[in-house]
Amino acid sequence: MVPPELDEGLSIERVKDFSLEELLGMAIKSEIGARKFYESLAERIEIETLKEKIEWLAGEESRHEALLRKMYASMFPGKEIVYPAEHIGPELKPVARELQGVQDIVDLIRWAMRAEEIAAHFYEEIEKMVDSEDRKRLMRYLSDMEKGHYYTLRAEYELLLDWEMYSQMMHVGP
Amino acid sequence: MVPPELDEGLSIERVKDFSLEELLGMAIKSEIGARKFYESLAERIEIETLKEKIEWLAGEESRHEALLRKMYASMFPGKEIVYPAEHIGPELKPVARELQGVQDIVDLIRWAMRAEEIAAHFYEEIEKMVDSEDRKRLMRYLSDMEKGHYYTLRAEYELLLDWEMYSQMMHVGP
Repeated sequence: MVPPELDEGLSIERVKDFSLEELLGMAIKSEIGARKFYESLAERIEIETLKEKIEWLAGEESRHEALLRKMYASMFPGKEIVYPAEHIGPELKPVARELQGVQDIVDLIRWAMRAEEIAAHFYEEIEKMVDSEDRKRLMRYLSDMEKGHYYTLRAEYELLLDWEMYSQMMHVGP
Repeated sequence: MVPPELDEGLSIERVKDFSLEELLGMAIKSEIGARKFYESLAERIEIETLKEKIEWLAGEESRHEALLRKMYASMFPGKEIVYPAEHIGPELKPVARELQGVQDIVDLIRWAMRAEEIAAHFYEEIEKMVDSEDRKRLMRYLSDMEKGHYYTLRAEYELLLDWEMYSQMMHVGP
């Protein structure tokens, strides 16, 4: 089941249907969505080590948004950012409900992993489309950062599947 | 040239020459070495965003050390940890010299990437050797975390190669 915090989005092949300007708008929107998702998720998590990690992810996405805005401004000076209604890959949305235990966290982290994985590919696709070496470099930076997030989340996910061990290892719970 | 902060170590195939107890000792020693490396590197870096990221890595390695000590204590109760003289893969050591500009940072990050990459494989090898599911899970956790570190470092490395862009994007320098 797809949870309400995740919208499936278009497949990565659809990148070619959009202009670079639209793709950058999508990327900015997606970084904002990811930040809000992580912020709202962190608020609902009581496991201190995991909360900190999720807050760290939120801060990272916020920095990515700033980088993308700079790049947009340098490529399309003076232009308002175009935010297409569509988006490539899963789009994360704020978590508005109370979480009912560790299984809800596990599910949300699994979806976040998927979103991060597609985001990494998305930036690789934009890398092919931009022509200057510095812009390609920035896209590789963002792609690698999202890959880093994917593995950070996968590590937590893997350990959360065994709650007894997680709580014992991370000093949480009674 | 291999910098003084890095000792090349044995190839990953040599894992089979050691007992599980020795490998865990190596892993603990290696996490301590990585923490000290990142701490000393962070002290010598003036770029605030990069310094914070490196400090974050130091904190992570410190948590890994604690997890490994717990696992060791549960597997070999009451035993002193055995630290073999050898180590698999590059072992990071504290940075004791003054860094002479961005190229020194770039070189050290490249070596840290290599150490993180091998560490990820090292934990995968230990995963094959431990028999209980919870210990395998912990090894997958550590392996994924190190992969996350690898990509985080690779992102910074890639951007640092273009210093002009890095300083412009990250708001550093005059």
